[in-house]
Amino acid sequence: MTDGRLDPDARATRLRARLDALFEIGRAAGTNRLGLGPGEQRAFELVGGWMREAGLDVASDAAGNLYGRVPGDDPALAEVWSGSHLDTPFDGGRFDGALGVLAALDAAEAIAAGAGAPRTLAVVAFRLEEGPRFGRGVFGSRALTGTLEPDEAQLRDAEGVTLGEAFAALGLGELPREGWLGPGPAAFIEAHIEQGPVLAANAQRLGVVTSIAGMVGIEVAFEGRRGHAGTVPMELRSDALGAAARLVVAAHELAGAIPGARATIGRLDVQPGATNTIPGATTLFADLRAPDDARVEALLGGVVSAARDAASATRCTVEHVERWRYPATPMSPGPTAAVRRAIGGLGGEPFELPSGAGHDAQILAMAGVPVGMLFVRSDAGGVSHAPAELTEHDALLACVRALEAALRELLAAPAG
Amino acid sequence: MTDGRLDPDARATRLRARLDALFEIGRAAGTNRLGLGPGEQRAFELVGGWMREAGLDVASDAAGNLYGRVPGDDPALAEVWSGSHLDTPFDGGRFDGALGVLAALDAAEAIAAGAGAPRTLAVVAFRLEEGPRFGRGVFGSRALTGTLEPDEAQLRDAEGVTLGEAFAALGLGELPREGWLGPGPAAFIEAHIEQGPVLAANAQRLGVVTSIAGMVGIEVAFEGRRGHAGTVPMELRSDALGAAARLVVAAHELAGAIPGARATIGRLDVQPGATNTIPGATTLFADLRAPDDARVEALLGGVVSAARDAASATRCTVEHVERWRYPATPMSPGPTAAVRRAIGGLGGEPFELPSGAGHDAQILAMAGVPVGMLFVRSDAGGVSHAPAELTEHDALLACVRALEAALRELLAAPAG
Repeated sequence: MTDGRLDPDARATRLRARLDALFEIGRAAGTNRLGLGPGEQRAFELVGGWMREAGLDVASDAAGNLYGRVPGDDPALAEVWSGSHLDTPFDGGRFDGALGVLAALDAAEAIAAGAGAPRTLAVVAFRLEEGPRFGRGVFGSRALTGTLEPDEAQLRDAEGVTLGEAFAALGLGELPREGWLGPGPAAFIEAHIEQGPVLAANAQRLGVVTSIAGMVGIEVAFEGRRGHAGTVPMELRSDALGAAARLVVAAHELAGAIPGARATIGRLDVQPGATNTIPGATTLFADLRAPDDARVEALLGGVVSAARDAASATRCTVEHVERWRYPATPMSPGPTAAVRRAIGGLGGEPFELPSGAGHDAQILAMAGVPVGMLFVRSDAGGVSHAPAELTEHDALLACVRALEAALRELLAAPAG
Repeated sequence: MTDGRLDPDARATRLRARLDALFEIGRAAGTNRLGLGPGEQRAFELVGGWMREAGLDVASDAAGNLYGRVPGDDPALAEVWSGSHLDTPFDGGRFDGALGVLAALDAAEAIAAGAGAPRTLAVVAFRLEEGPRFGRGVFGSRALTGTLEPDEAQLRDAEGVTLGEAFAALGLGELPREGWLGPGPAAFIEAHIEQGPVLAANAQRLGVVTSIAGMVGIEVAFEGRRGHAGTVPMELRSDALGAAARLVVAAHELAGAIPGARATIGRLDVQPGATNTIPGATTLFADLRAPDDARVEALLGGVVSAARDAASATRCTVEHVERWRYPATPMSPGPTAAVRRAIGGLGGEPFELPSGAGHDAQILAMAGVPVGMLFVRSDAGGVSHAPAELTEHDALLACVRALEAALRELLAAPAG
């Protein structure tokens, strides 16, 4: 068992060292631990090892999610969970996901070293939270809660590997069809970097998350007609990139006009992609978010209508398909109050903010688990999903202190 | 020697059969005979074999260009050349380039079978005319005329292979530094499909080309800042795809406002290309053309200015670099008159039109060779650089007749 009686400053330093160790896995420009791939698997093995060194009871489930438990005094009481994910997007950073798992592990080490608590604490690491590899994320938490989609195993990555094949390659067999959450934990707390500039702009190290944005992901395909760059008059072209470009501009403008809304087109494929050929087809992925479902609907409606206008203006055709959708999700009162008190315990008024990013907590909340989220300041301008992702030591230290306090409160709570 | 005394209808049928045989090389969606690659090499070997079967004197030069000669009666007279190229873009069609080589071969077979002519006829196939593989084309004709660029050997394809490496892999050694055209031929006639809809719209099988458009190719790179799709407010983003999309829309509008101008953005790369990451960088290639150099300049100036505006509107930075530029090139009076008379000999008034596409003829004209071009109708809406590229039998038949007549006239012409 590692020494759980380090002071908080040393614990924050250890937390950063572990984040650095994970960052080395799959390192290129940033780190590449794509969900259900070898990098993520290596991260799960590394964290599982740290859990064992810390004396936790380690287990995994049918989706490959990892649990490290500190048993409570009363096994009849529902558990308290805390964690996040260990995968990254392409060339990701050190903190997204990994911080929530390693901060929970750190708290578990401190709690295991102290007096017992009534409830069992489980540190949880979910599989494949990030969407880019297969176009759909939060896989581990959705498998647990029985909300995988019928087409889930057939999703393909850029190399043509299906999600089902990647899953089987990890020795996990077939995709589970039913969830196994059962009554579930009494509470789930996810610590996570903000991935934005708001806490830093308000001189806060931590924040209490009030809700997670509603979001929908759509794939839009324009079909035009290929032609030679020099011979087809502009007014006779059906340029599929002309259509896609109009939609990108319109989507950004639409989101800018709805308070709190975001539209991101992160992927755009041009066919055939030759310098002297008019593009005959384009496909793009639009990630649309807003603080409530009504605004998501307004944004989606505007984008779909703009896609039709863009196609019509360029003599192209357009089709779109919804790849995923998550409703706006308020955080639960009990765990959120515990997070608020823990932050307040460090001094000052707890700062509240909504989350524009989706998280595994959203999936557990949709399944009825009481959830709370603790945001940790992102430095370097709030950059995320990039190697420059940064959270400085002072914010890690505050996270270490607040998460432990919130979990201790929840572990001590009586049933009911 | 093959039978040069087939009737023109049978010759047009043989021409199509040869085009079909070439189309099978590198066939995927369309055909892929990228310049200086194995597919182009195989095409050169196949056509070289047909030249030998036809009894032509076959030779190649330091750039790997292929020549098949029908010797004239007076070796002191300058030769007459006719041909085009055998490479294709990605997933190209049957006719672009190959038609000009095979129609010249067909004419040479007919001419070789008949009475002698004063001048020598050379069927010519140039290497790598298409730009997409290395971002710059008309390689074989530029090598011959000594107009390769200093960076030519360092150009890279999508797989990272340099042009110099691809050239050496064909057993051709180092890139030639000097041209070897010498005084050059008395005339060069290039038959080529129109690659556009004008001849069909005017119920013409053939056309006399009056000039080749001026053109410039620029690569534009926008740099923004990556960020998470959900957390960065729209007004704080530096979305490099937002910038690129604005430029695409603006470039199309600018070209639409200049008579005869064309702007094509055929390639657009988005980094990092993840669905939930704000694009931090984009690179696009703009192919800009117009009937005269003043209009090319106006279009280029507008596009560069629009790129700056797009960067500024999205808080990005932008850089651009010119990859190639060819001046607008009028066709030469002598060979063009021969083409006009040959078309007129089939009945009706010869139809004249400019070429929006660049051709090897443009490079030879810039080197002082008297050039003429014969356009052959494109069917299927004028689609080109695509598998659907089509020229029906009646237009092939007209091409066979007219090209032979034009070449016979030029071969008989006295010196001076």
